[in-house]
Amino acid sequence: MEYTILRVDLSKDKIWEEKVGEKVIKKYLGGRGLGVKILYEETEAGIDPFGEENRLIFMTGYATGTAVPLSGRFHVITKSPLTGGIGDSNCGGQFGPMLRFAGYEGIVVQGIADNPVYLYIEDGHAELRDASHLWGKGTWSTEDTLREELGKDINIVSIGPAGENKVMMAAIINDKHRAAGRTGVGAVMGSKKLKAIVVRKGKRKPEVHDEAKLKEAVENVRRIVRESPVTGEALPTYGTAVLVNIINETGGFPTRNFKTGVFEKANEISGEKIAETYLVRKKACWGCIVACGRVTKVETPPYQVDGEGPEYETAWSLGAMCGISDLAAVIKAHNLCDDLGMDPISFGSTVACAMELYENGKIPEEKLGGLKLEWGNPQTVVELAWRTAFRDGFGDEIAMGAKRLAEKYGMPDLAMHVKGLELPAYDPRAYKGHGLGYATSNRGGCHLRAYMIAPEVLGIPEKLDPLTPEGKAQWVKIFQDLFCIVDSMVVCKFITFAVGAEELLSVTNPITGWDWNVDEFMKAGERIYNLERLYINREGFDGKDDTLPKRLLEEPMPEGAAKGHVVELDKMLEEFYRIRGWVNGKPTEEKLRELDIP
Amino acid sequence: MEYTILRVDLSKDKIWEEKVGEKVIKKYLGGRGLGVKILYEETEAGIDPFGEENRLIFMTGYATGTAVPLSGRFHVITKSPLTGGIGDSNCGGQFGPMLRFAGYEGIVVQGIADNPVYLYIEDGHAELRDASHLWGKGTWSTEDTLREELGKDINIVSIGPAGENKVMMAAIINDKHRAAGRTGVGAVMGSKKLKAIVVRKGKRKPEVHDEAKLKEAVENVRRIVRESPVTGEALPTYGTAVLVNIINETGGFPTRNFKTGVFEKANEISGEKIAETYLVRKKACWGCIVACGRVTKVETPPYQVDGEGPEYETAWSLGAMCGISDLAAVIKAHNLCDDLGMDPISFGSTVACAMELYENGKIPEEKLGGLKLEWGNPQTVVELAWRTAFRDGFGDEIAMGAKRLAEKYGMPDLAMHVKGLELPAYDPRAYKGHGLGYATSNRGGCHLRAYMIAPEVLGIPEKLDPLTPEGKAQWVKIFQDLFCIVDSMVVCKFITFAVGAEELLSVTNPITGWDWNVDEFMKAGERIYNLERLYINREGFDGKDDTLPKRLLEEPMPEGAAKGHVVELDKMLEEFYRIRGWVNGKPTEEKLRELDIP
Repeated sequence: MEYTILRVDLSKDKIWEEKVGEKVIKKYLGGRGLGVKILYEETEAGIDPFGEENRLIFMTGYATGTAVPLSGRFHVITKSPLTGGIGDSNCGGQFGPMLRFAGYEGIVVQGIADNPVYLYIEDGHAELRDASHLWGKGTWSTEDTLREELGKDINIVSIGPAGENKVMMAAIINDKHRAAGRTGVGAVMGSKKLKAIVVRKGKRKPEVHDEAKLKEAVENVRRIVRESPVTGEALPTYGTAVLVNIINETGGFPTRNFKTGVFEKANEISGEKIAETYLVRKKACWGCIVACGRVTKVETPPYQVDGEGPEYETAWSLGAMCGISDLAAVIKAHNLCDDLGMDPISFGSTVACAMELYENGKIPEEKLGGLKLEWGNPQTVVELAWRTAFRDGFGDEIAMGAKRLAEKYGMPDLAMHVKGLELPAYDPRAYKGHGLGYATSNRGGCHLRAYMIAPEVLGIPEKLDPLTPEGKAQWVKIFQDLFCIVDSMVVCKFITFAVGAEELLSVTNPITGWDWNVDEFMKAGERIYNLERLYINREGFDGKDDTLPKRLLEEPMPEGAAKGHVVELDKMLEEFYRIRGWVNGKPTEEKLRELDIP
Repeated sequence: MEYTILRVDLSKDKIWEEKVGEKVIKKYLGGRGLGVKILYEETEAGIDPFGEENRLIFMTGYATGTAVPLSGRFHVITKSPLTGGIGDSNCGGQFGPMLRFAGYEGIVVQGIADNPVYLYIEDGHAELRDASHLWGKGTWSTEDTLREELGKDINIVSIGPAGENKVMMAAIINDKHRAAGRTGVGAVMGSKKLKAIVVRKGKRKPEVHDEAKLKEAVENVRRIVRESPVTGEALPTYGTAVLVNIINETGGFPTRNFKTGVFEKANEISGEKIAETYLVRKKACWGCIVACGRVTKVETPPYQVDGEGPEYETAWSLGAMCGISDLAAVIKAHNLCDDLGMDPISFGSTVACAMELYENGKIPEEKLGGLKLEWGNPQTVVELAWRTAFRDGFGDEIAMGAKRLAEKYGMPDLAMHVKGLELPAYDPRAYKGHGLGYATSNRGGCHLRAYMIAPEVLGIPEKLDPLTPEGKAQWVKIFQDLFCIVDSMVVCKFITFAVGAEELLSVTNPITGWDWNVDEFMKAGERIYNLERLYINREGFDGKDDTLPKRLLEEPMPEGAAKGHVVELDKMLEEFYRIRGWVNGKPTEEKLRELDIP
């Protein structure tokens, strides 16, 4: 097993190749794991995320683009400008497989270009090309323009104006609608003046050690994915927004900046409602048999758009979180975030934070340039998408993210974030284990480091009581380690609604030629999680940062299924550290030795 | 009489002063006249409007900032990137007087800055300052940011993203809502990387030769302005949009790209409707007793905005011209044009042109990125304002203006322009003399070079039959020459609804100390008009360009008060050339000698 990595130094206008051998792959797998290894080793503590030294790493893994279902993804790793900690984000679409087919498992970009460029990759060759004519454009017209210039058989990741303008929540977009959304990876790409990466469809076949065995294992995985009520039924039928009503009914659908967990108009923005109204068809990423994507169309003004979405997260962030129930407006804002290149979770959450700051009289009218910050105003979210991406007017303040905004206006507790990253669409007062997942996530407020909603709500792999903190720590650790594997091999996390470590290992061994057992496999995940932790420790994060917004720890949920609950974080955290072998949020020497991290 | 002109070379980072003496002022007055003289003499034929050589000239005149009512204006002169001919535009607000009070009658900018700068002027001193932090921002937040940094007692002209991105119809904005809108002067400012000019309120008093005599003349003028039914009643009560119903009833309200002159929903976007719905209060420019400005507020989504407008022209260009009757949307689009720094006449007209191209199947769906180009869609205009200013997607095509757009898509006759400048809100099939004014306007399609609507509709100074071409040429010449004076002294053209050359002369002689008669006065106007003509002749314009879009010459008006009419241009033009002393659209040697133009 060997990976070929494309290295790009934009400052020196230099491109070269590097091989990553089996020994390293066995330790860090690929994707997220290999990315953090490179970032950790090649950069120093305290670097400027927008400086030349910062690495912007695009990484696939051994499963990407193989016959393994849901393997059409890639991972982006960098130092986050939003949080100052680890920046990483996973993205679907077609780019991951296309990159491998064109000759590379990953790309490591360093330096800063003098003028806007894009990276063009074809059949094991790469070059930097002028992108002045694309600078300023949204990701949609960037893709359209490049396809007009270069033909249809290319695949593109790009940034929009948000990335160019170093909006802290800028995303990198693939296929117009798939986003490496979180932690501001698009802003780093913008700081490097790298507008896009273009890959022409190639013929290189990803390395597989034992095709026959892989085929057998893949057939089994496909069958399980198809038979799962989540990946075989709910997600294909209603998309991710199938969760809106489920989460609202279980009392954890964060509404109006987490004031409550019940949105009175949740059904208006639900997957079921999308299916009834704006849905055109479903859509899959490369190699996916689930097809959770929604192609949607709003046919009439004022929020007319041909696009996609919303996802569960955007139905929430651009809807309930801001008190908005106008589905057409949510779809419009969702698509503007894709087009302008912006993470809708952090964007919507920061707008909601601004709305609550405004409600508290903290934001003077003259800062708003006529924008209205009252709850439930759909135009405000749509217009702020434009102004934030272009850093105009009050959008310039949204562009800093919720934490900085709430601090600036003197009410830091109104920013619903962990470690600087805005929380996603689950109120942990209703799902205690999920709260521990938020608090201990290496990249900050995130549901994709340990998706405790699976056991706490969906009963996958078994049903846990969401309202008790008891016994959650071990589950969180398992999810965190497993998700490190999933993000590193790289496959879509939705596969874990259907299969576990065993099945993932059943495809891993035939691809790699290893003969691992589940313990060895999970150890790789644990190693990655601990290396990420070392990275953020080096940046100054420790146990004090493994926490939740005050509201979730102290204000009892006012209504719904979780009424009266707060998150009892301390007891879960103590247990978690013990299980992890961490002290004050830091891995012990012993743990590092055990994991063979130097 | 002497003017002090501030000279700025952005390439050389050099600032100096120049005096303009009485001899030149007597020939070219100031404002528009002095501007074209400088442009004509200092630049060569065929220069790139975005090149270093092009001059961007801000000019006041002897009346600016004096006791003369409606004297709160300034003029901008440059080579137009939109037309390739004379670029000039007049603007209200406060900047003109403030510039004089701070020490200068005008500013001539040449060269191109390395990085974005703004020009700061205080009390006879000027300096260039870094404007990197303002680049990318709209004019509103540019003004807000500068006031936050520099205090409240400043006045600002600036460009928005449209100017920065060299959108062909980019405007220069003063006081957030007053625009030097036409001919793309904002794009020239953007090409020079000059984001703004800031003037701190000063105490210099404009030169007046005989204060007592001026006072007396001014009192007379003020009385007449107050007593006029237009400037004393209609404009103060309903703003310029008072014209919507009047022009619609007389059959010349251009609807859906001039397909007809009757808009079935005209009343929905009229001055009367504004007064009933969104009007907050009226607003005046510096020294104005008319106060035609409308402060308006749309309180509910989706087109919520605290702003101003619409004017008559924007009610039309962003309304009827595109078949739109949603007043809130028109107000929103109007304000976006102000904020993003764009001429709403050329913008709306180009959108309408695109709509008709689309209707004719000329614009393929994939060019639109999901935008809808059907008539009457209010969201399309609002969203295209954003995309045009940022040159994103189809907005990049709107940014070229109607002439280039219609040529690109193979139906050049669908661009409703003269000499590359989009026509304003009067269909000349209903007002023949106004059509001659359009055709012979030096800057292209323009109602402000000879406002024949005054005699042909309003009966000022006397009522002419709008539907006959007879006897119109002499009127057009008089208006053209008079308006040269008005734009050069500089006062607002609306003063001519109330007073004529005699009254304007009655304030001119006391200010300047001259002892002119009306003939001498009008001769100065004629000289300016002829020098402009020489300028565009030098750029290749001649008699073939003194024409109208085919539709207006050949397609009879389908309905309304002008039903069956076309513009009989040829006979008017022949007479006009004779009266002007022009051959094939060019002044004769004899005429130039007579006017003492070397």
